[in-house]
Amino acid sequence: MQQLKPSLALDMMGGDFGPQSTIPAALAALQEFPHLQLVLCGDQPVLEQALKLAGVVDEPRIRFVHSTEQVLMADKPALALRSKRESAMRHALELVEQEQVHACVSAGNTGALIAIAHYVLKMLNGVERPALISALPSCQGNPVYMLDLGATVNCDADTLFQFAMMGAVMAEQVIGIKAPRVALLNMGEEEIKGSDQIKRASQLLTECNGLNYIGYIEGNDIFSGKADVIVCDGFVGNVALKTCEGVAKLIIKRAQQSIKQRPLAALLSWLFKPVLKSLYQGMNPDHYNGASLIGLRGIVVKSHGNATKDAFLSAIRQAVREVERQVPAKIKDRLEQVLIDKA
Amino acid sequence: MQQLKPSLALDMMGGDFGPQSTIPAALAALQEFPHLQLVLCGDQPVLEQALKLAGVVDEPRIRFVHSTEQVLMADKPALALRSKRESAMRHALELVEQEQVHACVSAGNTGALIAIAHYVLKMLNGVERPALISALPSCQGNPVYMLDLGATVNCDADTLFQFAMMGAVMAEQVIGIKAPRVALLNMGEEEIKGSDQIKRASQLLTECNGLNYIGYIEGNDIFSGKADVIVCDGFVGNVALKTCEGVAKLIIKRAQQSIKQRPLAALLSWLFKPVLKSLYQGMNPDHYNGASLIGLRGIVVKSHGNATKDAFLSAIRQAVREVERQVPAKIKDRLEQVLIDKA
Repeated sequence: MQQLKPSLALDMMGGDFGPQSTIPAALAALQEFPHLQLVLCGDQPVLEQALKLAGVVDEPRIRFVHSTEQVLMADKPALALRSKRESAMRHALELVEQEQVHACVSAGNTGALIAIAHYVLKMLNGVERPALISALPSCQGNPVYMLDLGATVNCDADTLFQFAMMGAVMAEQVIGIKAPRVALLNMGEEEIKGSDQIKRASQLLTECNGLNYIGYIEGNDIFSGKADVIVCDGFVGNVALKTCEGVAKLIIKRAQQSIKQRPLAALLSWLFKPVLKSLYQGMNPDHYNGASLIGLRGIVVKSHGNATKDAFLSAIRQAVREVERQVPAKIKDRLEQVLIDKA
Repeated sequence: MQQLKPSLALDMMGGDFGPQSTIPAALAALQEFPHLQLVLCGDQPVLEQALKLAGVVDEPRIRFVHSTEQVLMADKPALALRSKRESAMRHALELVEQEQVHACVSAGNTGALIAIAHYVLKMLNGVERPALISALPSCQGNPVYMLDLGATVNCDADTLFQFAMMGAVMAEQVIGIKAPRVALLNMGEEEIKGSDQIKRASQLLTECNGLNYIGYIEGNDIFSGKADVIVCDGFVGNVALKTCEGVAKLIIKRAQQSIKQRPLAALLSWLFKPVLKSLYQGMNPDHYNGASLIGLRGIVVKSHGNATKDAFLSAIRQAVREVERQVPAKIKDRLEQVLIDKA
């Protein structure tokens, strides 16, 4: 059997730093994955110049797609979809659609990426809406997958059901968890609580064989390790994820104040600074991991807008893993199986 | 002018510890507020026995209302409302309704308290749904009021508008902030984001004079001090608040692990244990402050179910403050003013 040579299209112009972080990340990825092929989408002279400065000329595993436009972080999604047809983001997604590459990675405007990806790649059969999914830290060893983190604001019961299926496939395929425990995020663990959509989604999931649905989970258990996959609508997921970031900042700030107030602790605070720093970084998962946009007929990984080289590299790694595990095909198979079981 | 003598009805049987924490809290409150009068609702022989053990007999500022039933933490709200008519919780709320006391405090089942309070006290004119509001810590000095934390799952634009008004009154009256900055919690700061209800609520708030509406805020800014009052529906507020608790636990756990991995830090970890402990406590505001149930024709303060003496005492203090500031009357005035301005 021939080994799969993963190929990725990278939106080199997205994010707060553009080529400054995407170029070193791309070069590190080529080193890490000897069979990786890259298509760099963006302003070709700028990219070639940056590669040259990094000592790279005529690298056979790199090719370029020149883009004359750029989706800005402030662009409205609908406008970016209509008017930025020659942008690196659009080109990268079109390369996936044309099957010239297996996946694309972007650190650009999230709303625009979702809108353009949805339009260019289309949804998988059986999936109505896309979801952003990310692996969060947990008190136990394994990370926990949470979706949707902001792609779909209002979700009906069927959409939440599909998200649960997709999340389970991600946990199985990407982390390798067998029969991942799937939970719905709710405001109480009792069956009587929550909105009508959530109650109906719970019923659909309870009736579904082939999914390890464990019921409702509350916000205080997102990180406890009780569940491997946590499902909610995009509004709630986005607020929860960003609230984590806010809490982490507040805790670090208070820890610093609290240390200052204790003279002996203040004297030895250099000892604990790396502890605080690593905590803060660990609590900002979306800065360090990519979020995958799933439910589409292609693999799209979104790196944080404030992505450093390491963050963008981590998003590339994630894309490679999803290519190797053929995530969209697995999601499609799983949803088709559910439809057959229901019929 | 005669000084107001605040009188409170206390549900002595609620919470995980019942009289074990409510009796010492009640006695501490009588010491702290020389004009306070208390009506202790619950199993009278049990309460009298507990007071006697504490050395208190024939305290003229205490009277009893004997209750033969008890709302349990696991009771469903609708069932508690229908069948627990002789419970301490119900009695305490009825005393408020009959104007025998100015306010009530309970550490009991939140859902039952909301259902019974709503039924017994009724809504203020101009308010459609009750809201749970609590003061959260912030990176700046002042706390931030957030509502709704779980009383009303689905909120339309009018309800969110009323919550904004009520939250502003709380911040003005209870903390003393002039023209508090009011924000809507959303998944982005741009005008185009969020659900239809939120967009419409934003429009209503923008058009309203006499409210310092500053627009949308994201989850990462809940604690940043950008806003004094943060408004969202009960589902989102509940998830956000509980997520904070989950993140705080995760951070503390990771800090402990991180300290253990550093030999010198581990050796000196006793120095930083109080820092971690105070952080965790500071991040569990609803364990330490009461949440007020507002929008009703009476003052109801909910102490955490896991309330210790100090937590229940803090809820009593909050009730006294709301009695002194006549919060429900101020909310009513504010909403009437808005209706007049609109007409």
